[in-house]
Amino acid sequence: MIDFRPILFIVGLLLATLAAAMTLPALADAVVGHPDWQVFAASSAFTFFIGVVLILTTRSSRRRINLRQAFVLVAACWLVIPTVGALPFTFALLGLDYTDAFFEAMSGVTTTGSTVIVGLDAAPPGILLWRALLQWLGGIGIIAMAITVLPMLQVGGMQLFRMESSDKSEKAMPRVAQVATFTGVIYLVATMLCAAFYWAAGMTGFDAVAHAMTTLATGGFSTHDGSVGHFDSALIDTIAVAFMIVGSLPFVLYLRAVRGAPGHLWRDQQVRLFITIVAISVAGMTFYLNLIGGIEAMSALRLSAFNVISVITGTGYATTDFSTWGGFAVAALFCMMFIGGCAGSTTCGLKIFRFQVLYAAAHIQLRRLLQPNGVFIPYYNNKPIEDSVLASVMAFFFLFILCWVALAVGLGLAGLDFITATSGAASAISNVGPGLGPIIGPAGHFADLPDGAKWLLSAGMLLGRLELFTILVLLMPSFWRS
Amino acid sequence: MIDFRPILFIVGLLLATLAAAMTLPALADAVVGHPDWQVFAASSAFTFFIGVVLILTTRSSRRRINLRQAFVLVAACWLVIPTVGALPFTFALLGLDYTDAFFEAMSGVTTTGSTVIVGLDAAPPGILLWRALLQWLGGIGIIAMAITVLPMLQVGGMQLFRMESSDKSEKAMPRVAQVATFTGVIYLVATMLCAAFYWAAGMTGFDAVAHAMTTLATGGFSTHDGSVGHFDSALIDTIAVAFMIVGSLPFVLYLRAVRGAPGHLWRDQQVRLFITIVAISVAGMTFYLNLIGGIEAMSALRLSAFNVISVITGTGYATTDFSTWGGFAVAALFCMMFIGGCAGSTTCGLKIFRFQVLYAAAHIQLRRLLQPNGVFIPYYNNKPIEDSVLASVMAFFFLFILCWVALAVGLGLAGLDFITATSGAASAISNVGPGLGPIIGPAGHFADLPDGAKWLLSAGMLLGRLELFTILVLLMPSFWRS
Repeated sequence: MIDFRPILFIVGLLLATLAAAMTLPALADAVVGHPDWQVFAASSAFTFFIGVVLILTTRSSRRRINLRQAFVLVAACWLVIPTVGALPFTFALLGLDYTDAFFEAMSGVTTTGSTVIVGLDAAPPGILLWRALLQWLGGIGIIAMAITVLPMLQVGGMQLFRMESSDKSEKAMPRVAQVATFTGVIYLVATMLCAAFYWAAGMTGFDAVAHAMTTLATGGFSTHDGSVGHFDSALIDTIAVAFMIVGSLPFVLYLRAVRGAPGHLWRDQQVRLFITIVAISVAGMTFYLNLIGGIEAMSALRLSAFNVISVITGTGYATTDFSTWGGFAVAALFCMMFIGGCAGSTTCGLKIFRFQVLYAAAHIQLRRLLQPNGVFIPYYNNKPIEDSVLASVMAFFFLFILCWVALAVGLGLAGLDFITATSGAASAISNVGPGLGPIIGPAGHFADLPDGAKWLLSAGMLLGRLELFTILVLLMPSFWRS
Repeated sequence: MIDFRPILFIVGLLLATLAAAMTLPALADAVVGHPDWQVFAASSAFTFFIGVVLILTTRSSRRRINLRQAFVLVAACWLVIPTVGALPFTFALLGLDYTDAFFEAMSGVTTTGSTVIVGLDAAPPGILLWRALLQWLGGIGIIAMAITVLPMLQVGGMQLFRMESSDKSEKAMPRVAQVATFTGVIYLVATMLCAAFYWAAGMTGFDAVAHAMTTLATGGFSTHDGSVGHFDSALIDTIAVAFMIVGSLPFVLYLRAVRGAPGHLWRDQQVRLFITIVAISVAGMTFYLNLIGGIEAMSALRLSAFNVISVITGTGYATTDFSTWGGFAVAALFCMMFIGGCAGSTTCGLKIFRFQVLYAAAHIQLRRLLQPNGVFIPYYNNKPIEDSVLASVMAFFFLFILCWVALAVGLGLAGLDFITATSGAASAISNVGPGLGPIIGPAGHFADLPDGAKWLLSAGMLLGRLELFTILVLLMPSFWRS
């Protein structure tokens, strides 16, 4: 039997933190005199109360948790936050039903960015700030997890990134928890920097802060129905592009850069391939928009760079309805949804390092065809890839495709048409945001979907955010057997 | 440098065989007095001439071929047949241009079943018979390859099926070539049986033979624009369903059954899972058509059984436009395109055994999460799966998805819309036949696609039919280095 007490203790701590975060939108609404401030205050008090009760009733438990408890803990945290974080959405004047509220909160904390709220331009600041905060907290949450928990749990090849702390050549590297803390500081500083740039480029202070939080988190919630397209500013587009990329690189490498070793950032294979993929995709789409779409070259570059990078990184902003760009663009953007950024960033999706591991493995298989008895060793970042990592990454890829298929078929069963179902499933599991097509594409929203589809999509977001394995392992009967 | 002479020798033999096959449609047209008989006769003579020249000029070469030559040989055979097999389509009164003719021949010999010919009902018997013959020959060709060559080449996990001949417990099993010959006889007998059933159920003798050939080959070319739906007969539907399934099971197991060990057929893991998947898919679609679509239960079962099995097995017949069945059906049928049947059958796609290997590997990864130091061994048909097979299958899955994506994006670039591009790519690479949507769906055809798309789809069919690796290995620069 699993001892839930240490799990509940940490969940309690998390709830207390969430309660503290809820005071910020309460303040924002209070400043402009919007009655929603009471909803946030009440939600905060309620959340704090639950958190304190959990902490007090379980504080005497053992602090060390075992492997099973760790899996339950991770899933519990990422389920509790949207469950509680949905409260303000339900009780605010906005009046979402709980399905919509939960969807919005899950989309927020998983940094997906799909929204069911129509009329953001007229929404009170509290709601807008709460959406941004959920994404920002979700972003730092996943970075912290990628540094501390996921490599330990050996989820989907993430053990590749465990070496950092035990690497003999890096004796000066502090302990894992300290790394996570410093990384958090970098995340905070980067967000403030981004906000300052946005503000200097013409956004209001509020818009600048809200967008900075959702840019660094590669989340994509905007304070306007028109997303970043609302501002219609090349400068703002450029800032967003720069910081979406910042949010997609491994944050530990920034830490190294700050500590005087910026070379690691440029020498990292993940970073190099990510930048290459982004450059090729943007260039290809620019040519397509220019030659086939007849859009003037500079406009094509601006549209392509912003929207392609928004999709690849899974941010989900839009400056135009890219669903209408034609067959090639839609097929290409569809594929880009799956890519994601680097491990240890705020992005989701398959992630660059997995493509590198899969490619190395596939290439070796082809070479082995010609030399069946040859010995070939796949490499990643100039180190041989262990068999266990290889098997883990390959299983991840198979399960990722399988979960996407199951989700798409489920959405079809819920009544969605082909492109809405398939792109919606991809968008959810890769935490992108908008899908493709007229309903959930960048010009649409998720409000009109049936409730069943919203719950399925919420499950898909969670599954994708926690790298599948963390959730799937809980579904095995053997997990719960003593 | 690769010695091409033994390769050209075998290609010569193949061309002579193809020339012999061309006399059959010549005969059919001569019987009804259609002038196309001259085209077939001339094509046959030309093909025979080329074949004999190749045989005579290379007969002195060494007969034993090495690994590199084997890869070139396989690709050469499957490229030469459609290249030459396209001649009658071009020069017949039908007057296809060479792109269309090559597409039709490639679609035939790979047992895909996508067609560019409109007006089959009025077409002369020679053309119809040639289409059926190409599929039938392609069917036996791939079975023979799956028994003889592919396991030796260790392509995509096919080495799993090499054990048959070296298995100590089967001393009585004859040599590989003999197995291939006996299997060919079974294929022939099954085709005759199928034709007899079709004829007894009301088809004309010609239709019965033509459809029997394309049913056993899971090819899907019909002699009518309305496909099997043209006959509107529940009995014919049932016969087709039965023989499509016969064509999807491993033919070596029939040989064992004939030799007095039918138990192998029922105990084979591939066969069991295939039947299970088919049963669940048909049942699910029947419920959907009945409950959501409002189709009366028995009609729903008939429609579902025929069309679902046609898609899963990659046959590609249709009795209705299943593209219009709604979101769930389209998404589900889309996924079914990828499944395929058993290894050693005439089907294409990912194939059942690969799902079993992938599932076993993924399940072990999940179990390993809880016991990181545990030793888990994946099994297939009660035998442990070698690491090399595991790696090969996983690389195959990754490359299959990658090729599909590349093909879909390429088709998008050629101007196709999203569903036409994605389903067309899936249909080609899995050798299914029709795609989804109004253009290439079961109610449409491939005639109106741009030439670039037809060449891309032809390449996709070849890639899928030869299990990817066989073609991809030729694209590696190291293959051609001495």
